[in-house]
Parts: sequence; structure tokens; C-alpha cells
Amino acid sequence: MLLLGVALAQNVTENTRDRESSVFGYVAFPRVFDGVLVDNLETPVQFRGILYLSFAAWNAWCNYHPTAVDMFGRDKFKRPAEEHTRDNKNVAVLYSLYRVYQASPHSFGGAQGLPLYRQMMREMGYDPNDQSMDLTTAVGIGNRAGRDTARLMRMDGWNGEGDISGTPKGYRQPFLDYTNYIPKNTPWRLRYPFRWQPLLENNGRGFFFRQESVTPYAGSAIAFSLTPEEVKRRKVPSPYKKGSVQAKNALPEDIKTLKRNAKEVLEVSRKLTEMQMIYAELFDNKAKAFRTKENPFGLGGIATAIRFSVLAPALDWNLDEEMIYGLGANIATFDSMVTAWKEKRRVDGVRPTGQTMEYLFGEKQFSVWGGPGRRPVKIRAGDWSPFIRTMPHAEFPSGSSCACTAVVEHALINTKNRDDFPFRFTVPKGSSKFYPGQLPSRDTDVEIKTLSEWAQLCGESRLYAGVHFKPSIQAGSDLCKGIAQSAQELTDKLVAGSLDAKWMKWLPEGADRFWETE
Amino acid sequence: MLLLGVALAQNVTENTRDRESSVFGYVAFPRVFDGVLVDNLETPVQFRGILYLSFAAWNAWCNYHPTAVDMFGRDKFKRPAEEHTRDNKNVAVLYSLYRVYQASPHSFGGAQGLPLYRQMMREMGYDPNDQSMDLTTAVGIGNRAGRDTARLMRMDGWNGEGDISGTPKGYRQPFLDYTNYIPKNTPWRLRYPFRWQPLLENNGRGFFFRQESVTPYAGSAIAFSLTPEEVKRRKVPSPYKKGSVQAKNALPEDIKTLKRNAKEVLEVSRKLTEMQMIYAELFDNKAKAFRTKENPFGLGGIATAIRFSVLAPALDWNLDEEMIYGLGANIATFDSMVTAWKEKRRVDGVRPTGQTMEYLFGEKQFSVWGGPGRRPVKIRAGDWSPFIRTMPHAEFPSGSSCACTAVVEHALINTKNRDDFPFRFTVPKGSSKFYPGQLPSRDTDVEIKTLSEWAQLCGESRLYAGVHFKPSIQAGSDLCKGIAQSAQELTDKLVAGSLDAKWMKWLPEGADRFWETE
Repeated sequence: MLLLGVALAQNVTENTRDRESSVFGYVAFPRVFDGVLVDNLETPVQFRGILYLSFAAWNAWCNYHPTAVDMFGRDKFKRPAEEHTRDNKNVAVLYSLYRVYQASPHSFGGAQGLPLYRQMMREMGYDPNDQSMDLTTAVGIGNRAGRDTARLMRMDGWNGEGDISGTPKGYRQPFLDYTNYIPKNTPWRLRYPFRWQPLLENNGRGFFFRQESVTPYAGSAIAFSLTPEEVKRRKVPSPYKKGSVQAKNALPEDIKTLKRNAKEVLEVSRKLTEMQMIYAELFDNKAKAFRTKENPFGLGGIATAIRFSVLAPALDWNLDEEMIYGLGANIATFDSMVTAWKEKRRVDGVRPTGQTMEYLFGEKQFSVWGGPGRRPVKIRAGDWSPFIRTMPHAEFPSGSSCACTAVVEHALINTKNRDDFPFRFTVPKGSSKFYPGQLPSRDTDVEIKTLSEWAQLCGESRLYAGVHFKPSIQAGSDLCKGIAQSAQELTDKLVAGSLDAKWMKWLPEGADRFWETE
Repeated sequence: MLLLGVALAQNVTENTRDRESSVFGYVAFPRVFDGVLVDNLETPVQFRGILYLSFAAWNAWCNYHPTAVDMFGRDKFKRPAEEHTRDNKNVAVLYSLYRVYQASPHSFGGAQGLPLYRQMMREMGYDPNDQSMDLTTAVGIGNRAGRDTARLMRMDGWNGEGDISGTPKGYRQPFLDYTNYIPKNTPWRLRYPFRWQPLLENNGRGFFFRQESVTPYAGSAIAFSLTPEEVKRRKVPSPYKKGSVQAKNALPEDIKTLKRNAKEVLEVSRKLTEMQMIYAELFDNKAKAFRTKENPFGLGGIATAIRFSVLAPALDWNLDEEMIYGLGANIATFDSMVTAWKEKRRVDGVRPTGQTMEYLFGEKQFSVWGGPGRRPVKIRAGDWSPFIRTMPHAEFPSGSSCACTAVVEHALINTKNRDDFPFRFTVPKGSSKFYPGQLPSRDTDVEIKTLSEWAQLCGESRLYAGVHFKPSIQAGSDLCKGIAQSAQELTDKLVAGSLDAKWMKWLPEGADRFWETE
């Protein structure tokens, strides 16, 4: 068996060796998925991809655990205790991940990682073409778990294969909206000043495009630790009393609020410090941020960073503990995104960018950030743009502050509320993705002292980034409090051998409940 | 001197050696620009990039020619006859291209090619940091020509640096529209059935976006062999009598015409042959298409293919002849694109894609192409999509048939109307960019017997591709007849030592005519 992984912790205990053998977290992720999944997908699609990889791994692994059941609540494939070896767990996961990736490569960033995955399998001594379904072997357990996870993916309401409306092969558009979301504002005219407007983006080389709201169905498709009712009940009030009116009918107090929010964004831009820029970029990428020698997985976005770089070494998890933590963290992340998306679509709030500034301030000039190493510049409000890209979905609430709240709450549950896990790293000079070679202007030490501080910085950083008005940040955090608890309860039950099948309540009538019949 | 180039012709004559020493065509293009410029830019931006590289090369080279003057009509930098060596020409071009690339990397596809270019210079024994303006040396001649060409680029009305409207540094968006083009239709509703609608595109991995018309100012910014008046006078009548009305006011005969055109597109799709797919893809990329072992520059799109793979070896040009042909060909291509863009914006015609089919045919089903190797499938008309991407600009007329007409006319002028230059190549199995591994289903021989046939196939292929209605193709060809003649006349005069300064008529009042004063 060649599944060795990377030795990351300095004091290599038996738990460390066990944990770092994990095929998903420590082998396949850095070697294959990091490169395809992370850079090529919009955030919600990325979260979904990571979740299903996590499910595929879980559904294979659980059969080599004393009590755990799979995401379908099944224990019938469980193997006897003497087979609960590290190798069996990892081999089953190796095949399961491969099958789910192979079944829908575009869901995980594209097929370009498949040859890498196959090569990795071969180097480990395993045959990617072994399609055995012999459930007495780890290969068969893995193949079966991967197949079943892939079947679940096809019924989750994300239109991941583009066939929801019966479109024939060759004309399918994976992830195409089928819920008829049409923005109230066109990209060319802000007629409803509080409603979302698709933004103009460009690649800096003459290719311009207008945004299409990404996965507008995400709030009504599926969650795993929350029922449809529970998601619907979670709400945060819009900052605007009459948020759906045209400009001529806008309440003066709403315009005042919008103006105050907008001025705050410009003011933050004017005062932007280099440390704030670092945080803005660090928390923008949900799965991979600044990568350093000390952090071979990159900072990995908040969820990955807390899991791999903070808690795993500090608590010295073994493989099973790592697997259990990972499942809960991924469910908490996904379900919080679902909840945020539901509210984003309901409130449909306007962003600071687009024609908002021009509408509010016309030709009026403001002092704003002048670029890396430059002094603030005076600029027409409408010419301002944020420090980093504004993503293609509505303003309110912040999905980041929602997800970060869930991730940190989940972490705190697992540390029994111990908060002081200091984390230090150095952001190398010039390592910025958005301003490469220019930011940071020098090697910069960052220290995050507690788990709570991650959530706080994550929220604030969206204001530094210029992508949100301030009220959206608190709202995201308020909205998603407690979701981690639901994710943890689902996980705890699965480990103990039962399923709280909330996710099945999302399935359409007539869904093929193959796990009950096969 | 290490400027050797690649020996392509089989019988290596002195002319061949001379021609293939050309730094632009045979050294820097395949080594640097092919990789950055061709894949990273929308077609009009690409055409502009190639044109300015061509100008930069010309403005350096002409000083080592007995009579030629630069694009500004100047002869004052010309060098004495004894310096008219191959090395001097190539060294001057080497520096000139570098300066123009360095001045606006995004105009040529991005800065990622700059290190390659510098490395290439060093390997040839030249110092990229040599900024000498000593006009008695080839380095100085090249640096000056590059600088002046780059200054011209900044006043050509393309907003290539994003500063036309005075936007400060850090907030500039190169190539941003400043002419306020707003489509009559929103992406979400086809209200004006004959007018352009921005299309929905996606990357197959959940990232969807709506098109923004690319460089809508291209028809009113600059041309080089045509005056503003000459471009304005060139017109082709829209296929629709009342093309600007809303659906409720549409003329029945116009709806009938649109339906007939639409059915023709679906019918072509149903009958699509593999050879037609090959042509569709071949002529889609204007600067690089199927690349084969026999064609190291790729087929290179029609202009490049005819220049490098057909005429250069057949007529055995020397370096000067290659340079002169290249300038004329690039001006003809650019000016025809300008003329097509002007008409595209004026007519603002709807494409076959978008909501056109749904508007015309509702739920009605049609048999269409079923994908590589598959039989036709029945599909709701609105679910149909073309064989390849539909580009982000209006339908009428076809820019391809316009540009191909100009390219072939220019070729025929230079062969004194000799048409029979047969060209053969093999398209390797599975080498398709759009359907890699699937198309073609076998190695496929393609033969294009005459220069005229290139233009004909180029036009037709847009119908195979599904990106145009049929009338647009003839219209593109009609519109652009004779532009090659203008381009040739400009070139002939430049070679003979005078400038027909039509392009200067495009400059805004108060433009800094630095070439007159410095």
C-alpha cells in the first residue's frame, strides 16, 4: 500500500500518520482537485463539488467504521471489524472519489484532472479500470459508494447535467437556470435602485460581458441538515423599507440609507490599508487563497485552513476524526450557502457596483483608493470599482459572512468552545492574485488569534473588498447562526448509525429512491 | 546574428532564406504572439493587435528599403543603401515589435509573452533593455519605430488604455465602450424581433454570462485605407423592410423572411456533414485553426494560411516582398472588419441564437444535428444551439465573409489574378478544438484548389457553424468588395515613398500630430 500522504505536523504521532493517509484530504485534493475544482468554478458550484466529494468519501469510509452509516442511512454494506483498516478505508475512498468525478467531470472543474487521477491511482498500485462491484472488497465498496453518490447528484435540483427540462444530449447546458430568474434591472439601466443589477465585467483585454446570476435555484434545490421549511423560515430584513420600487417611487429615507451605505464603501476605499487588502483577498477565495511554503494547501480559504492548518495539527485527529469533522464542515458550509442564496434571491439587493454610484452621485467626485502603492485619487463615483471582483449574485446578505459564521461555529462545537487556536503565516511579497508583483509590498506576517477572529475578519473583509454594503455583513452572520449545529447533529447521528433524513424532503415527487430498493 | 527562422520550403532558395529570417512572421509570431495574441482576444481586438505589430515591423523595416516610407509618410529616418542588410532590417523589427508590445501588453493578448520575447532577444544576442534612440543603428531605428507606433495606438479611438473619458489610473477599463451602445433587446426578452439580442453563454461548468457587444465603436474609430466618408458610404440593405419595430408592429413579410431564414439554419444543422463541421471550425478562428505537422503555423486562419502556407512558398518571396504583402493583407483585413462593424451596428440584426427560435416557433420541434457521431435529434427550436460559439456582435452582415473577401481579393491582386494555388492538408482525427477527441472521426484530407475557393468556403462555413442566417453571408461579401484594392493602393504608395493619408482623416481634432513636429 502506497497511500502515504504528506507529513505536515512536526511531531509525527500515530494519529498524524493515520490522518495524513486520508486520500481525499491529503492525497487527491492537493494533487488533483485543488488544481481543477478551485480555480475553475463559481463559488456555489465549487461548494457543491466539494460537498459531493466529501459524500463520496464518507459513503465509502463509513463501511469501515464501527457504527457510521452512509448519507442514505444504510448500514447493509458495512464490513466486519477485522476489515476496518486504514488501507481499506483509503482504497474505498480512492475508488469512490474517482467514480463520482468521472460521472460528472464538469461538476468538479473539468475533465482535465481525470488523467492525473488515473495516474495517481496507478502509481499507488490500483487500476482505474477496475469496476468491480464485489462488496466484500474495498474496491467494490468504493465503486458502489461513488456510483450512488453520483446518482444523488443527478436529483439535487442543480441541473448539473443540463437535462432537467428534457433537453436532449448535445444541447444540454449544465447548471442552466430553469426557475426563470430575470433581474428587475437590465445591465444598461438601473430602474429599480434597490434591486440587483447584473454587472459589467471584462478580462482587461477587450472581452466584456454582463453577469448572469449564478445558480439562482440554489436556495430552493436542496440542503442536507435543514428541511425546505427550515430554510424558508430563516430570514433577514432588507435594509430598505420599500426595496422593490422604481426610482420615482423610492422612499426618501431608503435613498438616504443607500447613500449612506454607498458613501461608507467609498470611504473604506479611500482609507484602504495594505493589511485590509490582504484580508480582502485572503477571504475572497473560499477554497484557496494565499499559498505559502508553511501552508502547502494554501491558506485554503477559511474552511480548509481551519480544518487542515489549525485544528488537525492542534487536536491531532486520526483519520476517522478528520473524516467526521470534514463532513460536518462541508455540510455546514453548503447549507449556509443555500440559505444565503435563498435570501439573496428574495431580497434581490443592489450591489455597490454597476450603476449604483452614478445613480446616487452623478458627476460628483470622491477620493478613493488609487491602486497599489499609489495615493488616493479623485474619481467620478460611477468610475469607481471595487478592489476585487464582485461576484454574479445579489447583495444581501453576504454569503461570505454567512458561510464563515457556519464554519467557525462548527469548529467551536468541535473544540467544545475552546477558541484560542492562534494561527500565523507570512504572505510573501507580490503574491497577490489580483495585483501580482505589486501586493503585498513586502513579506507580511498575519496572525489570527482565535477561531472567532476568522469569522469576524471574513465578514469585514467584504467591506474592504468593496463588494458589499456594510449591513449585508451582519445580516449574513445573523442569518446563518445555528446552521452549524444542524450540520453537527446530522453528522453525529450518521456516526452513531442513524439518519435524520431532512435532505430527502427536498426531493421532487417521483424521485427514484434507488437506495431503498436496490 | 542568430536570426535564422525555420526552413519551411523544400527547395531552399536565397529568397526562402531571406523571407524566413523575418522576425515578425517567422520568428516572433510562432514563438511569442501566436500563444498570447491568438487565443486570448476577441476577433476585432485580435485584428487590431496584428495590424499594429505589422505597422511596428513596417515602420522599422522601411528605413532599410530604397524607397518605402513609414505609416506617417516619413522618410527622414531612412538609412543609406549600404546599410540595407537583412540583419539591420530584422534587428530593427525585433526592437520595434518589443516596444509596441511592451507599451500595451493587453492589446496583444497579455503580458505573459513579454518574458518569452525578452528571452528570445537574449538568445539572439540582443539586450531587451537597450533603449537606445541612436538613429544610426538598427536598435535605435527599431526603438523609435516601436515608440511611434505605440503612440498612434493611443489615438485610434479604440480606448485601448481605457482613458478616453479621463478615467484615472487604477480604474481604467481598456477597450470599454464610450459610445453608449445599448442593445434594443435585453438578454431576457426579445421585444424587437429583428434587432440584436445579447446571447447567454456559459463555460460548461456553471459560469453563465450575457454578451456585451464587442468594440461597438470599431466602425467609427479608424480605418487606414479608407476615409470616414468611404466607410460610411459602404452599405448593404437589411433583409427586413422594417427591421427596428417591436413584435406587434412587425410586417408579416418580414416575419416570413425571418422564419424562412431560421428554418434554413435548422435544416443545415440537421444535414450537417463532417466535412462541413471541419470547415465551420477551420474558418471560425481568424488567426489560428487546425494545426498540423505539415503546417507548423497551423492553418492560421485564412489570411495567415494564404500568406505563409500558400503564396510565400509558391511565389518564393524574399523578405521585402513578404513584408509588403503582409502589410497590405493586414490593412485589408482590418479595414474590412471596420466596415463590417459599422454596418453591424447600423443594421443591428438578430442572430439565429438567443430567443429567436423560441419566438418564432414556440414549442415546435425540429430535427437537428445530434452531436459528434450521433444521429439527428428532435428538439424544441428554442433549445437548439449552433455548432460553435456565436460571437458577441450583431448578425448582419457576416464579418467573416467580408474579411475573407478582402483577404482573397488582396491575394489575387498580388498574384495578378492567378487563382490556381492548390492547398492540401490533413486534419488529424480528434483535433477539433470544440469537440476534442470526437471530431474529425478520422484523419481527413482537405483540399482547397483555388484562392477564390477560400473565400467561398469561408462564407458558407458560417452557415454550417449555425452562427449566421444565409443573407448575411452574401451581404458581407458584397459590402467588402474593393477594400483590398484600397489597401493595396495605400501599400503601393508607401513602398514608392508617399502616403495617401486617409487614416489621418479619422483623428479627432486636436490630436497630437507628433510625427510632424518631432
